[in-house]
Amino acid sequence: MQIGINATHLRLPKTATEEEVLHSITEVNENSSVHGLIVQLPLDSIHKIDTEKVTNAVAPEKDVDGLTSINAGKLSRGDLGDCFIPCTPNGCMELIRQTGKHRKRHLKSVKGAGWLHHSGAWWCWTHDCGHADGGKVHSEMLSAKRFLEGHQPGKWNISCTKLNLQKPVPSDIVISRSCVPKPIDRLAREVGLLSDEVELYGKTKAKVQLSIVKRLQAQPDGKYVVVTGITPTPLGEGKSTTTIGLVQALGAHMNLNVFACVRQPSQGPTFGIKGGAAGGGYSQVIPMEEFNLHLTGDIHAITAANNLVAAAIDARMFHESTQSDKALYNRLVPLSGGQRKFSPIQINRLRKLGIEKTDPSTLTEEEITRFARLDIDPSSVTWQRVLDTNDRFLRKITIGQSPTEKGYTREAQFDITVASEIMAVLALTSSLEDMRQRMAKMVVATSRSGQPITTEDLGVSGALTVLMKDAIKPNLMQTLEGTPVFVHAGPFANIAHGNSSILADKIALKLVGPEGFVVTEAGFGADIGMEKFFNIKCRYSGLRPHVVVLVATVRALKMHGGGPTVTAGMPLPKEYVEENLELLEKGCSNMRKQIENAQHFGVPVVVAVNGFKTDTEAELDLVCSMAKAAGAYDAVRCSHWAEGGAGAVALGQAVQRASGAPSNFKFLYDLELPIADKIRIIAQKIYGADDIELLPEAQHKVELYTKQGFGNLPICMAKTHLSLSHEADKKGVPTGFVLPIRDIRASVGAGFLFPLVGTMPTIPGLPTRPCFYDIDLDPETEQVNGLF
Amino acid sequence: MQIGINATHLRLPKTATEEEVLHSITEVNENSSVHGLIVQLPLDSIHKIDTEKVTNAVAPEKDVDGLTSINAGKLSRGDLGDCFIPCTPNGCMELIRQTGKHRKRHLKSVKGAGWLHHSGAWWCWTHDCGHADGGKVHSEMLSAKRFLEGHQPGKWNISCTKLNLQKPVPSDIVISRSCVPKPIDRLAREVGLLSDEVELYGKTKAKVQLSIVKRLQAQPDGKYVVVTGITPTPLGEGKSTTTIGLVQALGAHMNLNVFACVRQPSQGPTFGIKGGAAGGGYSQVIPMEEFNLHLTGDIHAITAANNLVAAAIDARMFHESTQSDKALYNRLVPLSGGQRKFSPIQINRLRKLGIEKTDPSTLTEEEITRFARLDIDPSSVTWQRVLDTNDRFLRKITIGQSPTEKGYTREAQFDITVASEIMAVLALTSSLEDMRQRMAKMVVATSRSGQPITTEDLGVSGALTVLMKDAIKPNLMQTLEGTPVFVHAGPFANIAHGNSSILADKIALKLVGPEGFVVTEAGFGADIGMEKFFNIKCRYSGLRPHVVVLVATVRALKMHGGGPTVTAGMPLPKEYVEENLELLEKGCSNMRKQIENAQHFGVPVVVAVNGFKTDTEAELDLVCSMAKAAGAYDAVRCSHWAEGGAGAVALGQAVQRASGAPSNFKFLYDLELPIADKIRIIAQKIYGADDIELLPEAQHKVELYTKQGFGNLPICMAKTHLSLSHEADKKGVPTGFVLPIRDIRASVGAGFLFPLVGTMPTIPGLPTRPCFYDIDLDPETEQVNGLF
Repeated sequence: MQIGINATHLRLPKTATEEEVLHSITEVNENSSVHGLIVQLPLDSIHKIDTEKVTNAVAPEKDVDGLTSINAGKLSRGDLGDCFIPCTPNGCMELIRQTGKHRKRHLKSVKGAGWLHHSGAWWCWTHDCGHADGGKVHSEMLSAKRFLEGHQPGKWNISCTKLNLQKPVPSDIVISRSCVPKPIDRLAREVGLLSDEVELYGKTKAKVQLSIVKRLQAQPDGKYVVVTGITPTPLGEGKSTTTIGLVQALGAHMNLNVFACVRQPSQGPTFGIKGGAAGGGYSQVIPMEEFNLHLTGDIHAITAANNLVAAAIDARMFHESTQSDKALYNRLVPLSGGQRKFSPIQINRLRKLGIEKTDPSTLTEEEITRFARLDIDPSSVTWQRVLDTNDRFLRKITIGQSPTEKGYTREAQFDITVASEIMAVLALTSSLEDMRQRMAKMVVATSRSGQPITTEDLGVSGALTVLMKDAIKPNLMQTLEGTPVFVHAGPFANIAHGNSSILADKIALKLVGPEGFVVTEAGFGADIGMEKFFNIKCRYSGLRPHVVVLVATVRALKMHGGGPTVTAGMPLPKEYVEENLELLEKGCSNMRKQIENAQHFGVPVVVAVNGFKTDTEAELDLVCSMAKAAGAYDAVRCSHWAEGGAGAVALGQAVQRASGAPSNFKFLYDLELPIADKIRIIAQKIYGADDIELLPEAQHKVELYTKQGFGNLPICMAKTHLSLSHEADKKGVPTGFVLPIRDIRASVGAGFLFPLVGTMPTIPGLPTRPCFYDIDLDPETEQVNGLF
Repeated sequence: MQIGINATHLRLPKTATEEEVLHSITEVNENSSVHGLIVQLPLDSIHKIDTEKVTNAVAPEKDVDGLTSINAGKLSRGDLGDCFIPCTPNGCMELIRQTGKHRKRHLKSVKGAGWLHHSGAWWCWTHDCGHADGGKVHSEMLSAKRFLEGHQPGKWNISCTKLNLQKPVPSDIVISRSCVPKPIDRLAREVGLLSDEVELYGKTKAKVQLSIVKRLQAQPDGKYVVVTGITPTPLGEGKSTTTIGLVQALGAHMNLNVFACVRQPSQGPTFGIKGGAAGGGYSQVIPMEEFNLHLTGDIHAITAANNLVAAAIDARMFHESTQSDKALYNRLVPLSGGQRKFSPIQINRLRKLGIEKTDPSTLTEEEITRFARLDIDPSSVTWQRVLDTNDRFLRKITIGQSPTEKGYTREAQFDITVASEIMAVLALTSSLEDMRQRMAKMVVATSRSGQPITTEDLGVSGALTVLMKDAIKPNLMQTLEGTPVFVHAGPFANIAHGNSSILADKIALKLVGPEGFVVTEAGFGADIGMEKFFNIKCRYSGLRPHVVVLVATVRALKMHGGGPTVTAGMPLPKEYVEENLELLEKGCSNMRKQIENAQHFGVPVVVAVNGFKTDTEAELDLVCSMAKAAGAYDAVRCSHWAEGGAGAVALGQAVQRASGAPSNFKFLYDLELPIADKIRIIAQKIYGADDIELLPEAQHKVELYTKQGFGNLPICMAKTHLSLSHEADKKGVPTGFVLPIRDIRASVGAGFLFPLVGTMPTIPGLPTRPCFYDIDLDPETEQVNGLF
């Protein structure tokens, strides 16, 4: 138990004069570290004091005692302390038990006194911080309640870390290691988290409990900024780096409350070809090795949950194929202690089948068959296994070839874990209750009679929620300059929706308060990550962003202008390291289109030109002027990679200005439109396609999902991120193409339909020389080397 | 920074008399919460005091100041505080820098003063607990050093949790939930861990850093007890429950220092048919849902590491098959910034090939080919992919069927994660350095020319170590009665070695001190888990157990006497719930054989008869007397499932007595014997086989591994746990059989050969109605339901 919010008790001499009382109050008013106060008027001189005057002297934001409750009588039962202590219900009940019957009666007799339930937590007002000292519980809880209700998170008192900039800029891991992170519990306190809301995972990571959502529900939100980009090269254009640089600027240099909300990287690319994803240079989340490896295990939990569903599907098909209805039923509803009982999950399935019975012995034979046989059509299974490893040999496999599976083989595949529907659920859910419901709705296959088969039908939805109970809590880390970061949900906006979580964004928006900023990241280019951010994530969250930051680089724009192919792991051709204004100007067409894409949603766009050391002044100026000409609210050069937040102050100022500009948010399409129309709108308005073509499998799915009642879900396109079109090598602004929709999947639990555009591998492969060749641990110092 | 060890500074008035000084010392001597003291003699009256008398008055275990250093002069530089603070080297260096040049000079001039390196940690003696107050660093470090060197972990002052026993015994999850665990950082302090040695994972789990091994290296070990069992029924006979019951008895009822070292359960069975593995009834590790789900992610880390190797093998074979030597080499050693460089891991491979070059441009064509081509024979790959899920359809699969893999398909399989060689490495390693070496030595396949191909050849060994850097730290949890538990490494003693980790055992043995006990668990029956414990684990650890506890149940013994088949999920036949002395007496043959098996190793055996509520007095008595007649040191009835530690006090006392009995430890076989001879010794002496039969594949491997130089590794048999023989349905003591060895694998990194006896699935399957049907989360209370 530790102090959560700092209030002060004015202890005045018994004979203090009115002037002395007013002076003390003024002092507290001016002390920014005190968030509230309790006034106990001097017992001996109270008759000489104008209580109204005293009441009015208290600054409104510090009035925890309430205007009507100032009197000495209420405070006669002992000394008051100066801390609020959040308690668990168990803790408080124990407190009462410990203090015996008398105390219990006393607490009962004083209505609302001693302890109360408020904002999702139990609060007590005690003499000191010790739980054991329950004997001094006071009726001042009412004050506490008012304080909590009225409390506005103000300006944080955050200790920022000074950067010691080196030139040339060292490797990411060297920079990350050179900064000692603040203990994460300290950062948590600095941003207004109560100690009971934080679960430490070592000294640099923590999970934040969802109870905070309730505690802060009445608070106004901060400003909401989404970072996206132009169509990138395969090297990436520094969107994460810009996100972190921007928050370092807003927090450490402009002295604003600010949170970054970023996604947990997949370990596949970390050991494959891309390296880490903590940002780069002097704009990073630290410690970057903790960020890039395991974190707090969220992705591992998704792997476990996803694959439990997969195992359940194949095992169920196997058991149904080898057993009679009667045998199946006897095993599903076994005799235990002389009786049969349905589990609650089985009752849910019965209800879905329209069977309103709860006694297993009363089912008719026909009902037994319907209940016990899911009758999955093996060719209809859309649920895939996943691994967070770049294992290309699992892209297409045949399973069930052991003799123990009696010949029930089947073609299947593994996807990268972050592409799992469970990852999408994690990102889009709003509460534990909501997650439980989504976990039940996930459709894994179709029965031979055309019914959707769900995770609830398999009986596995409760277990999935249990496996995900910790993953749902956002992870708190920090930037190099000591500002807070939430890391939650996963990347891959091409084959997933690739946005950070709604819960992290919502909690951060409350914590920063109305003058603060939350900068969240949408994966890859604005045509996919941002489009999904608006049409899917904002639709479910109800949040409306104030500003879009669009990251552009000279390198990528030159590529769009017709520069040679950029390949990861290969040296850059000279066009990219020498000034070439012609290529650049031509390539700005892609930026213009992506600005236009953001404007479809009615939100002001600030272009961040992420400068590389080979960029020339003329090149950087050209991009800025082209961006403004294309309708950007502003366009700013940044150098946060080399300079940290100091290099993104101009961007921060532009974002702050833009957040006050008028905006007129709208979605791109109406959910009630037919599936094909929604896909067509995205293809035409965002990608610039002439039309779409539904290939036969996709056409079949449009009909199936419409019939099954999933037609009104939003659309999550699976499309390459390397082109506005479906062909990765078409750079700039491709035109005159028809977008082929090969197939459609339904992620009913996450809440979207998932059209597959062309063929896209859903699990990456390892190159000839993967990153892991350079990664090692020094057993002496325990330092990780070679991560970048 | 928090207080690690509690010492007290006697602050006496300047004019205190000798009598007053002696009185104060006596007070401290009697205060069990103070572990040391610093005596500052009264400045004004020092000439009147007999320092020898004072010196002798200090109890030896509290003499931190050393006999010769009592004088006033040494302490004139300010007041002394009362705490030791462990610092990191960085922390201390910073401290010196902060206090400026003068301080630095001063510290240099006073030899050993201010801070010192001792027992693997940096220590400073400061005025208070704040790091920032470095100005008051004192020369009393010498005292601190003596204290640390002389300090013996004494009797812990541990607060045990009182059980509130209910009848009938509620479900495991209900019991677990009804006990509020102590904050884990408190338990860590209680058992002598310094706060900097502990990494919290939430409020009920923590990882312990390996630096403690060095700090406590000079301490004597406690008593070492291994828990094993008779051949079990498929339901398990309560070995984990007995382990926990026994430590609750020793710790909470017999007031001894005691640690349980248990294995992290696999999530496969948790959601499959077995349920959790935290013990049961009133003998559990809590919170049981945290124990059974994810824990701190160790098994997930193994899944990630194992599958990175698998992906690397197939990707490498693929790249080699589609590229020329030259192209391969150019990609493996790419031009970067105008030059080529080998990574350290590549230099290791060059050395292995006998190429002593470090400049990539100097390799001959022949050397380039040898370096760049691992030339793996696809049919020789022994490394399998793993998942911690009961997914039977992955037992045999065909991979590489996507067109992107150009027809390079291959048969492969998934094992359960705990069967990964990396799990065995985790259990058997002794340090980070040792783990790094083992990670390099793992053999994954054979080249076409017959050379073993290792993880180091693949370039992945460093990355594996990085992935496992946190998993190597043991996990601290607690029993229902508040005693400490290390959870580390994994189960499945049939298809793995199934023992808890050497590191956890070693750290626990130091922490409990010479009068304390460490109870570690070996999986399944004594024929497999215990045999591997002795012949593999004890060989690598160098530890020698004092006592074997052999768990027996009336139920399993009746089965061995010819009782009907026992099937998980089915009601027990009446033979098992009614008295049947005849079956029982017959079945005691299995117990007799397993006692004999333990005696092969020369360690006293205590039989723990784990009582069920259907067992009769006569039955329990019969088992005890049969056990003693078979040569057990003692045999004791226990009821810890229903009564917690109180139900295992008799067992605890028997174990304590046995730990003082003479023992004469010996291994079963000599490592230098030929492979087949070692297997034969285990088969004949432990299983009771007439002989072994090496099938052709096994014969081939004997020759291959002998040639490759792996012939002198210990043996880890993969054999069913349900019979002493290789046939699960042969109960009792099978005789007259020949043990078929189908194949042999080499786990060179873990350090054993792995003969496969008959056919055994290496990944379990899900039954028709898996446990997950009952598992769910209450979104309101966040409570997990249905785990057992």
